[in-house]
Amino acid sequence: MTNTDNHLGDRAGGTSRDRAAGTSPEGRGSAEGGTSRDRAAGAVAMDRIFDAVALRGPVCVGLDTAIEHLPPSLRSTHSSRAEAMFAYNEALIEATADYAACYKVQIAYYEELGLEGLRAYARTLEAIRRSGRVAIADIKRGDIADTASRYALAHFTGEFEADCVTLNPYMGLDSLEPWLEAADKFGKGLFALVRTSNPGMRDFEGLALQKGGHVYDEVAARVAGLASRGRGERGYGTLGAVVGCTERDEAAELRARLGGVFILIPGYGAQGGGAEDAALLLVNGNGGIVNASRSILKAWAKSGRPADSIGIVEAAEAARMATLEMRDAIAEAVRSQASPR
Amino acid sequence: MTNTDNHLGDRAGGTSRDRAAGTSPEGRGSAEGGTSRDRAAGAVAMDRIFDAVALRGPVCVGLDTAIEHLPPSLRSTHSSRAEAMFAYNEALIEATADYAACYKVQIAYYEELGLEGLRAYARTLEAIRRSGRVAIADIKRGDIADTASRYALAHFTGEFEADCVTLNPYMGLDSLEPWLEAADKFGKGLFALVRTSNPGMRDFEGLALQKGGHVYDEVAARVAGLASRGRGERGYGTLGAVVGCTERDEAAELRARLGGVFILIPGYGAQGGGAEDAALLLVNGNGGIVNASRSILKAWAKSGRPADSIGIVEAAEAARMATLEMRDAIAEAVRSQASPR
Repeated sequence: MTNTDNHLGDRAGGTSRDRAAGTSPEGRGSAEGGTSRDRAAGAVAMDRIFDAVALRGPVCVGLDTAIEHLPPSLRSTHSSRAEAMFAYNEALIEATADYAACYKVQIAYYEELGLEGLRAYARTLEAIRRSGRVAIADIKRGDIADTASRYALAHFTGEFEADCVTLNPYMGLDSLEPWLEAADKFGKGLFALVRTSNPGMRDFEGLALQKGGHVYDEVAARVAGLASRGRGERGYGTLGAVVGCTERDEAAELRARLGGVFILIPGYGAQGGGAEDAALLLVNGNGGIVNASRSILKAWAKSGRPADSIGIVEAAEAARMATLEMRDAIAEAVRSQASPR
Repeated sequence: MTNTDNHLGDRAGGTSRDRAAGTSPEGRGSAEGGTSRDRAAGAVAMDRIFDAVALRGPVCVGLDTAIEHLPPSLRSTHSSRAEAMFAYNEALIEATADYAACYKVQIAYYEELGLEGLRAYARTLEAIRRSGRVAIADIKRGDIADTASRYALAHFTGEFEADCVTLNPYMGLDSLEPWLEAADKFGKGLFALVRTSNPGMRDFEGLALQKGGHVYDEVAARVAGLASRGRGERGYGTLGAVVGCTERDEAAELRARLGGVFILIPGYGAQGGGAEDAALLLVNGNGGIVNASRSILKAWAKSGRPADSIGIVEAAEAARMATLEMRDAIAEAVRSQASPR
């Protein structure tokens, strides 16, 4: 299913406003930016991610950037923590762009610093957009009707514009519907939590249902039922799923049932998941992205050099190598899982 | 269980920082502010709400303020939409403070306007604090471990400091734990979604479990199991529950099972719930708060006067009367439900 004949050409990134106006800003050339026309066809964000994975592999770099994730020498070189975090993000985006399919920005790390932190969040999303890459806002929103519509405007337009967001489905399908409408309108994508990889997953997501299966199986079924909504040229709909690395049988079963659903896979590296686990949730190496945050942001800490001697160049290079190694490890796992067939 | 001998005295509100320093700021005198010593004992936010309900009834005024909720004449009287919304909030807080137990601020309506909107959000929380009232941030966060700790710092300290927050429990108890720790530390309160009143509630919250009951029954049981965490002088723990107005039998049963758990009840008025429904989720008129947003924010639209002639004074007065009427309707329902016993 990997599509190498993906008509990439000279697509360019841009904002919703640019797209609404049918213009393509200069200086934003990138393979998976998507043309205005593509975007109007819907599910464009998922097409863009698919093409990015085909080109550069399925690594999603998680910018869960806290000041403690920076090398000590960089923590006080800017006027504020938020400035230092943004500068680090910018360096990391540039350093990892060759091997990253996309970037996921966890808003909590910026919200912690109040308005200044959220300004760094907005600037980080802008830097990702400027690099021509897809930005996923990890905001896990879930609310009803009018509130959900407001959130969608907040995160698909304006200062906090992202290409995709994560959602919490607990309140039901009517909490997802306004997001689906907005995503179709603006050419965006969604990832609903289905089965996460934290131990507490057993408490509610993992409860056994009277009709069989678990709560997360029902969520998966409802998400799969919406896979045709805004299906793009690469076969994936507007609504994706968050599925953490898990036991092998379960992963294969969930992947099979989530046909046409792009999967965001957290839990790689620091959270214990490995390349073999992640590969099981992919479809021939595509159809999903694998997120790593800490292991890339703090790759500098494993360089063996004294922490105080590490500057931004060394830290960015360590992040680049960690991204490349992760990409290659997943590619190897995909190959070894494919070969027995 | 209504406690009228509630030792209110001269308690004063203040910020986490004030409280950590053991000081009590001047000019913030209010009945339910709580002393530093009370706060150090934990569950203080729930004690404060309990005392406020005993004094002024269980109405929680929802500041889901969008520009369309303002009378037409006020929509363009400020330099920006966010400024107009904040000015309206300030007038509403002053007008309704005599009859409101607390205020709930839905962050989506502010996030929609980007950084400027979030500045209005921060200023609204500050205005509530200044009035001596309890501020509930309706943010419905739910995330793992370190991320949850960051969110807790974001919403219990600094510019976005609130007294309580709403949480989404889908990811499990380990997504609530960092919030419980932070709430204990800062004297704050939490409300976890249990059973909401939107139609989509049936999709996942309402699924029937193999072991009996629904998903929300299990969430209720786990929340009730944590009721002793930080239990305050009024008998309620740090962790409250969000339970929407629902069928009578179900409401009475849920209330009985959520012993020692303060309940935030949305869905009054615009969302179809009435005083009778809400009263069932209270314990002799306390132990819960009943939120109304639209019916108070837009009470001016029912005044019978031409919309263009309504200024801020008339709109605030309409909100004040709507709050009073709602308080009295719930009090009447509580009395009529108590009398047959």
